[in-house]
Amino acid sequence: MAYTVGIVGAAGYAGIEAARLVLNHPEFELKVVTSNADAGDKLSDQYPAFAGLTDLAFTTHDDPALLECDLAFLAVPHTAALAQVPRLLEAGVSVFDLSADYRLSDPAVYEAWYNAPHTSPELLAERAFGLPELFAQDLAQAAEKHAAGKATLVACAGCYPTATSLAAAPAVRAGWVAPDLPIVVDAISGVTGAGKGCTARTHYCGADENIEAYGVAKHRHTPEIEQILGAPGRVIFTPHLAPLKRGLLSTVYLPLAASAAEGFSTEQAVAAYQETYAQSAFVRVLPAGQMPKTSSVAGSNAAQVGLAYHAATHTLIAVGAIDNLCKGAAGQAVQCANIVFGLPETCGLPTAGLPV
Amino acid sequence: MAYTVGIVGAAGYAGIEAARLVLNHPEFELKVVTSNADAGDKLSDQYPAFAGLTDLAFTTHDDPALLECDLAFLAVPHTAALAQVPRLLEAGVSVFDLSADYRLSDPAVYEAWYNAPHTSPELLAERAFGLPELFAQDLAQAAEKHAAGKATLVACAGCYPTATSLAAAPAVRAGWVAPDLPIVVDAISGVTGAGKGCTARTHYCGADENIEAYGVAKHRHTPEIEQILGAPGRVIFTPHLAPLKRGLLSTVYLPLAASAAEGFSTEQAVAAYQETYAQSAFVRVLPAGQMPKTSSVAGSNAAQVGLAYHAATHTLIAVGAIDNLCKGAAGQAVQCANIVFGLPETCGLPTAGLPV
Amino acid sequence: MAYTVGIVGAAGYAGIEAARLVLNHPEFELKVVTSNADAGDKLSDQYPAFAGLTDLAFTTHDDPALLECDLAFLAVPHTAALAQVPRLLEAGVSVFDLSADYRLSDPAVYEAWYNAPHTSPELLAERAFGLPELFAQDLAQAAEKHAAGKATLVACAGCYPTATSLAAAPAVRAGWVAPDLPIVVDAISGVTGAGKGCTARTHYCGADENIEAYGVAKHRHTPEIEQILGAPGRVIFTPHLAPLKRGLLSTVYLPLAASAAEGFSTEQAVAAYQETYAQSAFVRVLPAGQMPKTSSVAGSNAAQVGLAYHAATHTLIAVGAIDNLCKGAAGQAVQCANIVFGLPETCGLPTAGLPV
Amino acid sequence: MAYTVGIVGAAGYAGIEAARLVLNHPEFELKVVTSNADAGDKLSDQYPAFAGLTDLAFTTHDDPALLECDLAFLAVPHTAALAQVPRLLEAGVSVFDLSADYRLSDPAVYEAWYNAPHTSPELLAERAFGLPELFAQDLAQAAEKHAAGKATLVACAGCYPTATSLAAAPAVRAGWVAPDLPIVVDAISGVTGAGKGCTARTHYCGADENIEAYGVAKHRHTPEIEQILGAPGRVIFTPHLAPLKRGLLSTVYLPLAASAAEGFSTEQAVAAYQETYAQSAFVRVLPAGQMPKTSSVAGSNAAQVGLAYHAATHTLIAVGAIDNLCKGAAGQAVQCANIVFGLPETCGLPTAGLPV
Repeated sequence: MAYTVGIVGAAGYAGIEAARLVLNHPEFELKVVTSNADAGDKLSDQYPAFAGLTDLAFTTHDDPALLECDLAFLAVPHTAALAQVPRLLEAGVSVFDLSADYRLSDPAVYEAWYNAPHTSPELLAERAFGLPELFAQDLAQAAEKHAAGKATLVACAGCYPTATSLAAAPAVRAGWVAPDLPIVVDAISGVTGAGKGCTARTHYCGADENIEAYGVAKHRHTPEIEQILGAPGRVIFTPHLAPLKRGLLSTVYLPLAASAAEGFSTEQAVAAYQETYAQSAFVRVLPAGQMPKTSSVAGSNAAQVGLAYHAATHTLIAVGAIDNLCKGAAGQAVQCANIVFGLPETCGLPTAGLPV
Repeated sequence: MAYTVGIVGAAGYAGIEAARLVLNHPEFELKVVTSNADAGDKLSDQYPAFAGLTDLAFTTHDDPALLECDLAFLAVPHTAALAQVPRLLEAGVSVFDLSADYRLSDPAVYEAWYNAPHTSPELLAERAFGLPELFAQDLAQAAEKHAAGKATLVACAGCYPTATSLAAAPAVRAGWVAPDLPIVVDAISGVTGAGKGCTARTHYCGADENIEAYGVAKHRHTPEIEQILGAPGRVIFTPHLAPLKRGLLSTVYLPLAASAAEGFSTEQAVAAYQETYAQSAFVRVLPAGQMPKTSSVAGSNAAQVGLAYHAATHTLIAVGAIDNLCKGAAGQAVQCANIVFGLPETCGLPTAGLPV
Repeated sequence: MAYTVGIVGAAGYAGIEAARLVLNHPEFELKVVTSNADAGDKLSDQYPAFAGLTDLAFTTHDDPALLECDLAFLAVPHTAALAQVPRLLEAGVSVFDLSADYRLSDPAVYEAWYNAPHTSPELLAERAFGLPELFAQDLAQAAEKHAAGKATLVACAGCYPTATSLAAAPAVRAGWVAPDLPIVVDAISGVTGAGKGCTARTHYCGADENIEAYGVAKHRHTPEIEQILGAPGRVIFTPHLAPLKRGLLSTVYLPLAASAAEGFSTEQAVAAYQETYAQSAFVRVLPAGQMPKTSSVAGSNAAQVGLAYHAATHTLIAVGAIDNLCKGAAGQAVQCANIVFGLPETCGLPTAGLPV
Repeated sequence: MAYTVGIVGAAGYAGIEAARLVLNHPEFELKVVTSNADAGDKLSDQYPAFAGLTDLAFTTHDDPALLECDLAFLAVPHTAALAQVPRLLEAGVSVFDLSADYRLSDPAVYEAWYNAPHTSPELLAERAFGLPELFAQDLAQAAEKHAAGKATLVACAGCYPTATSLAAAPAVRAGWVAPDLPIVVDAISGVTGAGKGCTARTHYCGADENIEAYGVAKHRHTPEIEQILGAPGRVIFTPHLAPLKRGLLSTVYLPLAASAAEGFSTEQAVAAYQETYAQSAFVRVLPAGQMPKTSSVAGSNAAQVGLAYHAATHTLIAVGAIDNLCKGAAGQAVQCANIVFGLPETCGLPTAGLPV
C-alpha cells in the first residue's frame, strides 16, 4: 500500500538524493524519474552506486505517468518549477518543491531577486513552507488538506536557509534578538551545493585546495532567510565554497536586544534551544563548549546546532550544520511528505550517517 | 528476540563501522562496546554522527557483559585477538574476528609473517573463513554448528584480500590462470585503511594531495591472498595509499594458461563472472568496457568487479572495488553473522551507498 | 656575502616553510635548524620534498651555533619564544618571531589571553610589529636600528590577523567604520593552520569532508585583530577548519559610520583600496564583482582582497585570502627580514604560486 | 638577451604550467600564449595565481607573433600538433612538443593507436625524444643542430611514460629484465592528468573520494612505454585516477632474467640506480626500504624512484613519482629546451616543491 512517487529533475544532485531516499523508503514507491537531458539513461548509468538497486530510467518531464503519482518531488531549477506545479496539482498530485519558486510569500520579492515573473502567485497563499521544525503548523494544515483528499503544495526551504534558521530562529522567536540590527550569516557549503553543472568552479582542479566566497551581498537565499527570521533587509549573507562533497555549516551572528543581553549566557541559550528542539528527531543542540561538524551529519537528515555567547558585543553566535543534499534538500522534502501523508516524520530517513 | 552483540575494539575504524551496522540491524542488539583506551567515553563523544543514535559507552575488554552476548565482533589488532577468542568461545559466544589471527590455515605461515607464536592453532582447523561469496561451504558448516547450539569462530577476510579475491578467484577456480606464473596485485586504499592512529602518514597534511606505495614486497595480506587463490609464493602485492576516507580498489593481473588463452575474450570472462556471482546480493560484475569506482560502493557492503583481457600478453586484468571498512571489514563480518545465525544474508546491510 | 640564518622550531609547519624560503633566498644562508623533539633527524627525512636540496639536520634549541647567526626565525609555540628572544637579542641576533609572544603591546592583555606571565615586557615597547603593508614605519625603524648595528625584534603578525587586517584596515584607517559597533570576522583555514600535532581533528579521517568552527568567541587571535584595527572589545572572531592544506580566507563585516555610508559604493571602496596597496608587491585588490580564492595565493607570499558593499545594512564586506604558512607566517617573516636587512622586500619570496 | 617563447595551447593545464615556468625563467621571455577558445582573455582571468605576474592575453594559434619566437612549447591535443609543427620549424622556431604526435618512431604504430594518419612522418627520424635522463644523446644532437642555427623538434615524453621509464629503464638497460615476459605498469595520476575539460569524471563530486582505473588494456601511453623500454607488445599498462591535483606514481613490475635473478637484492638495484642517476639534478633514488611519495615532488621537476626486490617471483618492483604537469609535461619540456639552447639543465626549474 505504498504511495507512488515521481521525481522531476531527478538527474541533478538533489533529485538523485531524493531517489536514494525514496528507494529506501518503506511507504514510498519510486515510479517516475524525469530529466529532459538524460531521458533514456538508467539512473545507475550516471550514479553507479544505484547498480543493482533499481533499473529505472529517466523519462522526460512531460511523462504522463507523473500525473498518476500520489506525490512528486520537484528538483528543477527555479522558474522551471513554475511550469510544473500547477499542472501537477490539477492532476491531484501533491507536490514537494525543492526549488525556490514558491518559497517567498511575496511575489514581488521573488520577482526582484529572481528576475522573472511569478506565474502562479495565487498558490503562494496556500502553500506550506517546508521546514518542519520551525513551521509545524504549515505542515499540519497541509496534512489536513491531504487527509481531505486534496493535493497540496509544500515549498521546501533551501539549504542555506535551513541550516541558518535552525540555528537562528529560536533566538529570534524568543525575542532575544535586537529588532533593528543587522544579522550576519556566514556559511560554507560543499561542492554538491554548486550543482552538477561542470564549470571552472566545480572542476576538481578548481575546487580542490580552495576556499572562496561567492554571491557576496547578493545571494538569492538572502530574502528567504529574512522571511523566516522576520528580518527584512537586515540579513547579510555570505556563502563560501569549500572542498568537500556534502556538508553545509552556517555561522550566524545575532545581536541581542539590551533587555535580553543582561546576564545572558551560553548555557542559558543552550538550555532554551534544547527545550525548543526536545521533540525533534533530527535536530540536536550541542552542550556549551561544543560546536557542530558537518561530518557528523553527512548522509543523514540530522542537523546539529552549537551556541556561544560573545558577551563583549552582546552577540549570540549560533552555528548550524546539515548535509546540504539531505536535510538541506531531498531529506527535508521527504520529511515534509511523511508529515503530509500521515507517516512518522522519520520514516525512511537516516538520522545518522557514517561515523567516519 | 534480537541477538545480543558485543564489539571488542569498538573505537577503531572497523569497530565503529561494526557499531554502525549493528545499531541499524533489525535482529541484532548492541550491548557492549569495548576499548581499553577509551573506557568511559561515549561512542558519540568520539564519533558525533552517533549523537542521538546511542548512549552506549566504551568499557574495557574484560567487561563480563561480553561473555553474555550471543555473538561478538573482534576488531582488535593482530595477536590481541588470540587473547580473546578462546575465552569467548568457551563462554558460548560466537566470534566474528576481523583481525588476521585466524585467517591463515597454517600456523607456521602466521608465525613467519606476523612474527608471533600462534597460541591456539587448534582452532584453525574448525574456524570458518569469512568471505561468503567464495567460501559458502565454510559458512554453511558454521551455521549448522550454530544451529546445533555451539559457538563458532569465523575469521573474516581482510580488506585487500576481499577486493582482490572477489576479482581474481573466479578466474583461478575456472582453471584459466597459469599455475606457475606470478600474479601481480596492485591495490589502492583510502586512509581509514591506515587506521585511527595518528602518524605523519595519517595526518591530514601528510595524506592530502599524496599517493604512495607502502609495505612493498612484504605486506602481511600477501599470504592471505595466496591462500585464497591457491598460489603460494606467487603473489606480488603492492598496496598504495590515496587521499580519500573509504574505498579500496585492487587491480589484479592474471596470466592465463595457454589452454585458456586461446580465443579468450573480455566478454567471455564477464559472462562467466556474471554467472558466478548471479546469486550474490552484493557483488556486481560490470559489462565489458566498464570499470568499477570506489565511490560506487562507499558506505555499502557492495563490491564491483570489472574485467579486461590484454590479448598480447594473455593476461586477464580483474579490478575489484569495495568499501574497505564495510565489505572489507565490518560489513563482511555482519554478513557472515547473518549467515551463521540463520538470517537473510543482507539483513541490516546497505547494498547501496550515497549516489554522490 | 649572505646573512646567516637560524630557525628555532624548524620542524613545525611554519618553521619548515621558513626553511623552504631561506633555502631559496639569494641573500640568506640557512645555518641552523632546531627542534628539540627531532634533533639528529635530517630535514629531508621528515619533509622529503627537501631531498637533494639540503643535508641539514635538526639540532636542539640550545645549539650554540644559533647565537652566531645574523638573524633567527622563531617558530616555537607561544611562551616558548619568551625563553629564546632575550638571549638571542643579547647575543646580537636579530629575531623575527612568528609566535604570539611579542605581538600584543599590552602585557596585561597577553597575560589575560595566554594565561601566562610575560617575562620580558620591556621588549614590547621597542619591538616592531611585523605586517609590513600596514606597519611600514615599525619596520623602517627596525631597519635603521639594524643599520646602526643593533639586533632587532620583529613580532610577526599571526595568520588570521594578517588576512583580516589586510582586508579591513584600509577601511578603518579611512575612517569609514563606525567606531562603536562590533566587527564580525569569520574566517576559514586549511589544516596546516592546526599544526603538525596529530589529533582527532588533524587526522585525515577527521579533517577530510568536514567543516567545523573552533575556538568560537575565545580564539587568541582576537585581541591581536582588535589591536591592529584599534577596536578593543569589538571584534567577534570565528575561525573554521576546512579540508585543504594551505589557505586562509577571512570575511570581515565592517559597519560603516553614517557619514561614510552616504552614497558609498563597492567601486569607491575598491578604488581606495587599490590606491592604498598600489605600491605593494604582494597585495592585490580585485575589481568589484570578484572575490579572492585561496588557491590563487597558495605557495606564495601574495594576498588578495575583494570588496562588496551591502547597502541595506551599510556594511562593507571585505574578504582577504592568503597562504597561512607563507604570507600568514614564514613568508611574512622573511619579508620583514628583507626590509630590516636592507634587501628588496620581495627578495627570495614567491609572488605567485601554482596556477593549478 | 633572453630567448623569446611562445606557448601554443597555453590555456590547458600543461600549457599554463609551461607559462608558469617560462615566466620564472631567467633566460626565457614569454611573448605569445595561444588558445583558440580563450583568445582575448588574460591568463590571469582564468588562472588568478598569475594576477600581478603577467598581463599577457591569449591569442589564436595562427598569431603571426608565434613565428618570430625563438622557441615554442606545444601543449595542444594529439593530431593538433601535426598541424603546427611543420610550419613552426619552417619559420625557424624550435619546437618542444608536449603532445604525442612525434613521440612514436614508427608512424604505423602512431596510426594504429591514435586512429589518425601521420602527416609529417619524415620529421620522426630527426626529432629528439625528450626525456633527458634516458635520451641524453638525442638532446645533445638537438643542441648541436641548434648551435648550427637550425630549428629543432623535441617530442617530449608523456607523463606516464616518464615516471614509468625513470623507474624501469635502468633495470632494462642493465640487462636484468627477462626479454620475453610481460611488464606490468600500474600507475595512479592526479586529476590534472585528466585535463581541463569538465566531465562527470573531472567534476569535483565525481573525482572526490573516488579511485578508478581507466583506459584499461588500451591506454595510448602503452606503445610509448614499450618503445622506451624496448618491449614491443609486452607492456600491460593500467592507469588510475585518484583525488589529488598534481602527482603521478607508477609501480612497475619487472620480471628478472634467470641470469640476473641469481643473488639479486634490493640493495644491489639501489646502488646501480644511484650510479645511473648520480649526475641527475632531478632524479633521486631512495635507499632500500623507502618508497617515493608524490607530495615530495609536487610543484617541482624532481622525480623520485624507489626499489624493492620480490625474491620469490624474481621480480623487481620499481616505483617512480613525478608531478605530472611539471616533470611529466611542462617542466620536462623546459629542461629539454635548456639543454638544446645551451643553458644549464636546471635553469628556471624548481628542484623542490612545498615541504607541506
